[in-house]
Amino acid sequence: MSFNTFGHMFRVTTWGESHGTALGCVVDGCPPGIIFTGDEIQFYLDKRKPGQSKYTTQRRELDRVQILSGVLPEGNGFITTGAPVSMMIENVDQRSRDYGDIARQYRPGHADYVYDIKYGLRDYRGGGRSSARETVARVAAGALARKIVPGVIIRGAVIAIGPHEIDRSCWDWDEVERNQFFSPDAGAVKFFSNYLDSVCKEGSSAGAVVEILAEHVPVGLGAPIYGKLDQDIASGLMSINAVKGVEIGEGFASARLRGEENADEMRVDADDNPVFLSNHAGGILGGISTGQPIVARFAVKPTSSILIAQRSIDADHREVDIATRGRHDPCVGIRAVPVGEAMVACVVADHFLRQRGQTGCV
Amino acid sequence: MSFNTFGHMFRVTTWGESHGTALGCVVDGCPPGIIFTGDEIQFYLDKRKPGQSKYTTQRRELDRVQILSGVLPEGNGFITTGAPVSMMIENVDQRSRDYGDIARQYRPGHADYVYDIKYGLRDYRGGGRSSARETVARVAAGALARKIVPGVIIRGAVIAIGPHEIDRSCWDWDEVERNQFFSPDAGAVKFFSNYLDSVCKEGSSAGAVVEILAEHVPVGLGAPIYGKLDQDIASGLMSINAVKGVEIGEGFASARLRGEENADEMRVDADDNPVFLSNHAGGILGGISTGQPIVARFAVKPTSSILIAQRSIDADHREVDIATRGRHDPCVGIRAVPVGEAMVACVVADHFLRQRGQTGCV
Amino acid sequence: MSFNTFGHMFRVTTWGESHGTALGCVVDGCPPGIIFTGDEIQFYLDKRKPGQSKYTTQRRELDRVQILSGVLPEGNGFITTGAPVSMMIENVDQRSRDYGDIARQYRPGHADYVYDIKYGLRDYRGGGRSSARETVARVAAGALARKIVPGVIIRGAVIAIGPHEIDRSCWDWDEVERNQFFSPDAGAVKFFSNYLDSVCKEGSSAGAVVEILAEHVPVGLGAPIYGKLDQDIASGLMSINAVKGVEIGEGFASARLRGEENADEMRVDADDNPVFLSNHAGGILGGISTGQPIVARFAVKPTSSILIAQRSIDADHREVDIATRGRHDPCVGIRAVPVGEAMVACVVADHFLRQRGQTGCV
Amino acid sequence: MSFNTFGHMFRVTTWGESHGTALGCVVDGCPPGIIFTGDEIQFYLDKRKPGQSKYTTQRRELDRVQILSGVLPEGNGFITTGAPVSMMIENVDQRSRDYGDIARQYRPGHADYVYDIKYGLRDYRGGGRSSARETVARVAAGALARKIVPGVIIRGAVIAIGPHEIDRSCWDWDEVERNQFFSPDAGAVKFFSNYLDSVCKEGSSAGAVVEILAEHVPVGLGAPIYGKLDQDIASGLMSINAVKGVEIGEGFASARLRGEENADEMRVDADDNPVFLSNHAGGILGGISTGQPIVARFAVKPTSSILIAQRSIDADHREVDIATRGRHDPCVGIRAVPVGEAMVACVVADHFLRQRGQTGCV
Repeated sequence: MSFNTFGHMFRVTTWGESHGTALGCVVDGCPPGIIFTGDEIQFYLDKRKPGQSKYTTQRRELDRVQILSGVLPEGNGFITTGAPVSMMIENVDQRSRDYGDIARQYRPGHADYVYDIKYGLRDYRGGGRSSARETVARVAAGALARKIVPGVIIRGAVIAIGPHEIDRSCWDWDEVERNQFFSPDAGAVKFFSNYLDSVCKEGSSAGAVVEILAEHVPVGLGAPIYGKLDQDIASGLMSINAVKGVEIGEGFASARLRGEENADEMRVDADDNPVFLSNHAGGILGGISTGQPIVARFAVKPTSSILIAQRSIDADHREVDIATRGRHDPCVGIRAVPVGEAMVACVVADHFLRQRGQTGCV
Repeated sequence: MSFNTFGHMFRVTTWGESHGTALGCVVDGCPPGIIFTGDEIQFYLDKRKPGQSKYTTQRRELDRVQILSGVLPEGNGFITTGAPVSMMIENVDQRSRDYGDIARQYRPGHADYVYDIKYGLRDYRGGGRSSARETVARVAAGALARKIVPGVIIRGAVIAIGPHEIDRSCWDWDEVERNQFFSPDAGAVKFFSNYLDSVCKEGSSAGAVVEILAEHVPVGLGAPIYGKLDQDIASGLMSINAVKGVEIGEGFASARLRGEENADEMRVDADDNPVFLSNHAGGILGGISTGQPIVARFAVKPTSSILIAQRSIDADHREVDIATRGRHDPCVGIRAVPVGEAMVACVVADHFLRQRGQTGCV
Repeated sequence: MSFNTFGHMFRVTTWGESHGTALGCVVDGCPPGIIFTGDEIQFYLDKRKPGQSKYTTQRRELDRVQILSGVLPEGNGFITTGAPVSMMIENVDQRSRDYGDIARQYRPGHADYVYDIKYGLRDYRGGGRSSARETVARVAAGALARKIVPGVIIRGAVIAIGPHEIDRSCWDWDEVERNQFFSPDAGAVKFFSNYLDSVCKEGSSAGAVVEILAEHVPVGLGAPIYGKLDQDIASGLMSINAVKGVEIGEGFASARLRGEENADEMRVDADDNPVFLSNHAGGILGGISTGQPIVARFAVKPTSSILIAQRSIDADHREVDIATRGRHDPCVGIRAVPVGEAMVACVVADHFLRQRGQTGCV
Repeated sequence: MSFNTFGHMFRVTTWGESHGTALGCVVDGCPPGIIFTGDEIQFYLDKRKPGQSKYTTQRRELDRVQILSGVLPEGNGFITTGAPVSMMIENVDQRSRDYGDIARQYRPGHADYVYDIKYGLRDYRGGGRSSARETVARVAAGALARKIVPGVIIRGAVIAIGPHEIDRSCWDWDEVERNQFFSPDAGAVKFFSNYLDSVCKEGSSAGAVVEILAEHVPVGLGAPIYGKLDQDIASGLMSINAVKGVEIGEGFASARLRGEENADEMRVDADDNPVFLSNHAGGILGGISTGQPIVARFAVKPTSSILIAQRSIDADHREVDIATRGRHDPCVGIRAVPVGEAMVACVVADHFLRQRGQTGCV
């Protein structure tokens, strides 16, 4: 059963609300002997941290991670002991008063209505558990997950905001770190910023598409039939707030291809190692990694909290018009990049351990 | 741990290979007192059965379901007792000799290579466990799942084959039953058949997009954060062979919309019940069902087994050219319709029981 | 969630009823490359088979195992592929008419009453799912489990029947195979048979205590805190019908010991390997195997089905007197020996894979 | 997978070490709308708290619980929202220097050796994760679990210390609160104290037997075959440090009884409700609760940390003699009472939700 847990052997449980005392995660099943520093975790939390550009929420959170268990001191950092690693991030900049108005109103596109019906009550302060703030705990877990599979590199980028897409031929990973949008295409930046400026000015919000690439994942991770690697990646990415679609490799475009167009032919290289001549499959066949880069994309809907008034109802079924105040990302897709990376990292780590368990080798 | 199991409270384990003795499923956690007939299960197996048109594999399987446990006789059918329901479907038309050639060759787009690396061996006969034949067991489980949530209706249709899409304004559920493609648009049928005829003639294959609609799902199913209803639907659909993308509601299109375009506004109807004025969300907000129809789509890649020769290697790393014989669907997306329905049915049933367990009401 | 499943990586799901068509198990997560013969499975089924002595039920079942999936032919037997192994045993000697009388009556000591209240109905024929016949599926799974950990030996014996206990100083494993009670003490056999003869004659039944020994289990299996090896063994043994107590090593006797009496001191042997000077712990410390033999015992209550009339009620709350006919073991503890072995084998196999997964070595 | 998690629907994950910053638990799946106060949780933590008598460790911990998530304020306390409830207890009185000596030595009866072999390292400070201090987190979870099933009462008592047993005919629940041993028999107190005084004086330790009684558990909780209520209780109790045996109802004594002696006959009472005329079964038949009180007992071995020198080895396989200093309970069985209660409370709560999920009624 897993309402707030994902993963089987690398198993992550998160807890906490937007305006509660703190948020955190417990990582169970982490192998012993993993060496890491607090800075290595913090690096990814900082990447996700709000308030770093005008295109993200202005809420000011330090997002300092505390590592509470499962480790011993080692050098400047820590070494895991095999016991559960508990990590906590305190909330410091809640402004619950911003939310008094919507305590009994259902914001369109939000989970307010369904929480009320499902649970009979809800923590309306900042969205409570349904807030994107929950993702801070995933990012902490993901940072640890990156240490599990030797050599693996997992990184992501925004490839579209609203109607604007990057030019894939201009992809430059270094560029991703240089702009406020995690865009790999320098040329797309001005389109993204102009579009978001206009959207913000009008009190609206924008959607985005994010792509995650996982390189150096060993062949053989993922388990047919209901533990497929792409299935678990899809599940992980779809669990991120506001995600409405996920695809692997060619994804939806593969439906338009013919068999020979979509096939990844094989040959051997100079060292007699198998090589694929293309990667339409996105690094996964039959649910199992091929050794090629894993390519996953996900669509993030436009932020539901907007200043434009919308028709809705309240808990007493009175009709109301709602313009959502509070501090929100005009495009949550941007900060979804480190979150998507974290989810893929956790899924890959989990399958690495599962594969090692069942077969004895990876 | 779940290599071959999915679901938590309505829990389905499947087993069996394409050319083995039989395939089957064990449904654990089924509520007691569910009344059904063998015909009700068989109906969906027949819908998925191969050999029913020239656009599906010519393998002739009766696909008769045997119900081995978990029930007592009731009228013309059965009543569940709360014990696990084991269902078995025998294989009768295996032709393993067709596969002798590829016993040590890796067919492009297939799981052959990764199975060999992962497990050190593989059942090459008809694809073994990675065969789409495995889905017969899911369809049996799904047929039972449909009985769990009172009033729920789950049905699907093919909305695109290759480059051809249906006209959504012509959607007619009755039409779905009348053509060989599960197309809801009578006008699309000739495009689909012409395209598939040409693809088959050239020894190639085609992809497709399938849409599943689940109506009358109660409000409140699905559990944040890692048991989201859309997450579990995405996981279930992505576990189907050859699926490369999944989306809910507007899906990838939502990334191009602005906040107010994507919002589903609310009002109350004449009976003071909440109503949504649109369904961009596809019936799910914050991972929880809204009571609107759940809309999920998935992309199926073109069948990997094609007659056109492709470059590949064998287990000894010799370079070979492979033209796959055997009997295959030129477009596996067509028969994926009842499979997709089954997966959504199982996920909805599971969340119905989970919701009832945690909160005591649905 | 696991109503009818146990284990995490070596994961066993069983299904079937006493008087249904068949019973079976699905073993998921079995490592690939495990070589075994049908006879190796059958050996343990035969050990458990009813009708082999006057002290077990006279029901005549062949208990022939069919292996339906997850294997390829290998020599005279099979090799596992990593796919789920489905095994089935058909029921051939049901006599449901014996049970017509108790269809609506609640036999004392049986699950009749609680099934009716819990599920609203029950399969009264032979006890349905609550019958000890379910254990045939466990024994099949356990036979496969024995192949997972190299060198492990798991065997059991009856150490007490009713008030009669064996003399542990006379323990002889060869003797276990020679008598009808799985007694390791030849001297106890006549006490056991006399006692059981008298009990049977009077239409009553007897309890027993069974001890299971697992040798050559590697150091390090078992996982604190809630995956302790002794915890999972206790869980597995307690899941066997009629078991009312479980203990490890000194068990309940340890409560009477002082710290220094219960401690297992350590030294190194001539090869500088750690050795324990005693085994009060029964091979498990802190939930983790020590490398010493694992010693588990369980108490089996006297068979509830007896000819002596007992006071009870029926489904209409009428007071009745019940003398249970049908064919029953007068002492179910005897045939519990291979079942207990099977459960310990499954738990050890599961933890072997879990340990390998988390730490990479065993 | 559950190294540090137990339960399915009421799902408890614990984390933390004896000498770390803090310990805690995350309770996932808690129903919404449960009202409780911090004092209600603290009450049970205080019951378990060390340093309250000369017979428990002199470590001074405040054991103040902080509730970090999953609740909203309600009156003087809280109301659960359905989100995970995270609770944390800080460590304040660690004295890690006491353990420097045994950093590389294996204390007999402790998990030191097996942790080192299993994980390649261990947190030796106060026993790290294997410390009984971990049980503080279970007690917090158990306090919440008590609120799930309306009317249920779960309480425990020490029924034996070393060779001294209580007189069951003198059982008085009020007495349990009055003495330092949780003894229900006032007459046993002096035997317990004399025995423990002498054991302490000699630098040794004592074992104990604890009995837990759960009253007003509804009929029908527990799920055959591998989710039996007694199985999960056995698993939960066996997961407590130092527990070596568990039994239900008559337990091991049932093996000595004949069928008619062990049967719980039934009649109807004046209101036509079913009544049992005895409770040999300990409230559970076929793994399912009968509505009678659930009776579980567990044996706790004598504390392994004793002042009497014992032979052992160190990590370099040098032979050493170890007399364990540090602060330890001379009889950990005493403080195991609230821990055992907590485990039973969690198991009962879990099965209450599982039953409601599968069948819709409890």
